Amino acid sequence: MNYKAITKPTLLINEDKCRSNIHLMVDKAIRSKVKFRPHFKTHQSIWVGDLFREIGVGSITVSSLEMAKYFVEKGWSDITVAFPVNIREYKTINSLAVKCNLKILICDLESVEFLDLHLSQKLRVYIKIDTGYHRAGVRDMNFLRKMVEKIDLSKYLILEGLLEHSGHSYYAQNIEGIIDIHNKTSQQLLEMRNVLKREELIISKGDTPTCSLVNDFSEIDEIRPGNFVFYDLFQQALGTCTQDQIAVCMACPVVSKNRSENELILYGGAIHFGKDHLLVNGSKVFGKLVWLEENGWSEIINEGIVIDLSQEHGKLKVNANTFHKVNVGDLVGVLPVHSCLTAQSMGGYLSLKNGYIDHFNNR
Amino acid sequence: MNYKAITKPTLLINEDKCRSNIHLMVDKAIRSKVKFRPHFKTHQSIWVGDLFREIGVGSITVSSLEMAKYFVEKGWSDITVAFPVNIREYKTINSLAVKCNLKILICDLESVEFLDLHLSQKLRVYIKIDTGYHRAGVRDMNFLRKMVEKIDLSKYLILEGLLEHSGHSYYAQNIEGIIDIHNKTSQQLLEMRNVLKREELIISKGDTPTCSLVNDFSEIDEIRPGNFVFYDLFQQALGTCTQDQIAVCMACPVVSKNRSENELILYGGAIHFGKDHLLVNGSKVFGKLVWLEENGWSEIINEGIVIDLSQEHGKLKVNANTFHKVNVGDLVGVLPVHSCLTAQSMGGYLSLKNGYIDHFNNR
Repeated sequence: MNYKAITKPTLLINEDKCRSNIHLMVDKAIRSKVKFRPHFKTHQSIWVGDLFREIGVGSITVSSLEMAKYFVEKGWSDITVAFPVNIREYKTINSLAVKCNLKILICDLESVEFLDLHLSQKLRVYIKIDTGYHRAGVRDMNFLRKMVEKIDLSKYLILEGLLEHSGHSYYAQNIEGIIDIHNKTSQQLLEMRNVLKREELIISKGDTPTCSLVNDFSEIDEIRPGNFVFYDLFQQALGTCTQDQIAVCMACPVVSKNRSENELILYGGAIHFGKDHLLVNGSKVFGKLVWLEENGWSEIINEGIVIDLSQEHGKLKVNANTFHKVNVGDLVGVLPVHSCLTAQSMGGYLSLKNGYIDHFNNR
Repeated sequence: MNYKAITKPTLLINEDKCRSNIHLMVDKAIRSKVKFRPHFKTHQSIWVGDLFREIGVGSITVSSLEMAKYFVEKGWSDITVAFPVNIREYKTINSLAVKCNLKILICDLESVEFLDLHLSQKLRVYIKIDTGYHRAGVRDMNFLRKMVEKIDLSKYLILEGLLEHSGHSYYAQNIEGIIDIHNKTSQQLLEMRNVLKREELIISKGDTPTCSLVNDFSEIDEIRPGNFVFYDLFQQALGTCTQDQIAVCMACPVVSKNRSENELILYGGAIHFGKDHLLVNGSKVFGKLVWLEENGWSEIINEGIVIDLSQEHGKLKVNANTFHKVNVGDLVGVLPVHSCLTAQSMGGYLSLKNGYIDHFNNR
């Protein structure tokens, strides 16, 4: 890697790590005989998508209709939009549904009514179930029954499955807690399907913490993890990946040195990283230092912590030894806390081997 | 405004409010006889820039060389880059310096040495002073003297002034605290200039809290506020603006209703708003509800609080009455907590009167 050519904050991607993360998850899905429908909202990249395609993955998840369009244009044809359907975009739904096998998410009776009046062709839908994250989704059996009845009566909607996202796994206390969430939420969905007496319904689950830790998914039908393609410090802190699996790293120029505090001021702020952070002993951690090396980056340098981010500045606290080793104008590596939002903020990658890589730009 | 045409999260801009915010600040600068050099990192828009140009503003501040380039291409010719100079971009500095009256920020002796070897023409510089925010900048008189000597000896750098950003004003306890910060930091800079015996040096200050509350800047030479052009909930909570002055508002489709909690799920998440929040009685506030009206938006609806943001979802908590009034598919307004990062995330605006408006895209 020619780091000399890098003058601005740049998101590096280690494709070997990416590939290895993908392979592990694909193998797990194959062993469990479940459909693997990775969430592409993490990388939002045609190029990274091709790493999946190479090993036979043909079904994907995205988080917006625009993102679906981006992938449809590059030949992806089996796409679930895992976001409560935005009925204001029904025209986009109609135009996408003729171009690919589109599946959308239903959370409300009103959406069913509206779509039945505004769709121009049949469309496969999943009912979103809230299994404990308490964001969107159906929470009780009575309401679920009403939804199923309404969809069954509709002219255009075909109920294909029940779908959940265990976002609460990100807040579990430990690894056992995460596995427990998987077991409970799976049981919940299977019971719902039983009560409905609709064995054909696909049970779709997926979040990186549970998918990374659970080995056997054979009880359910489909998994949709996304973040695992890159992982990040948040996942490492949860215990769902090792630091070696983190596949993206920000390269940031050092623009100033604050001698009295052993702080390095980085060109790299909230507009590059996003603003998610870890709380470690009550202190915010926005990223951790690594050294950039010819073929990638080092292990985490424990004493190097990004302790604050403003619009374009990052404040990297180091020890005296490290402080004296780094000069103004140097490039340092920072592992991100939340790779999805960092990739979204950066809008592109620099591969260690393959130059610049695309990212969907919804702006 | 034709809200029917809005199908996705959209950042509305009320240009009358913008104009009025600009006029107030320009008048204040004129009365104080200080140079007004607004920070354009908040809006990053040629169109909004023209609102300034219309009333005679010709000097601006930006936060990156790329942003400087964006404005230079549209005829802005007097630009300060208020970010510690990134010496890795010296080629960009050289090419910009021949196209405009470029001024950069120096925080370190190494930068002076490097630039003197790599610049191809003379360049005006400001020394960044840390007056208490403790991010970047020179903190003590001895180091400042060394910097001045080094710049004076350099072949290409011309010292034009001392510059500070009182970012700590955002953390002041009350209005008096903010004004106090202005007074102290001004005194600090004036004393430094006195000790240096360099009366010709320009004293440049500027942050929206102090510039909004202080009436007389005549002791100093230049002010550089940025956020005031839009303001936001953070500024309103600080007491530096009224809610009527907030000039941007997100329009978000309601995609689901969570009946058990009176929560509306919005299409509008971290990738649209950024993730800054207020803490109100220990609870996070990511935005506040307003009703969209023909010519803009209503007063804040106090019971409508965005309590969580994930990648594309927003969770808007309301009371039962409001909950029943809103339907899936409706569009609601949300005032942002931090307008700079919301504008950056959205990368464009929809004016209430003038259609789509540009935003610099650095991705």
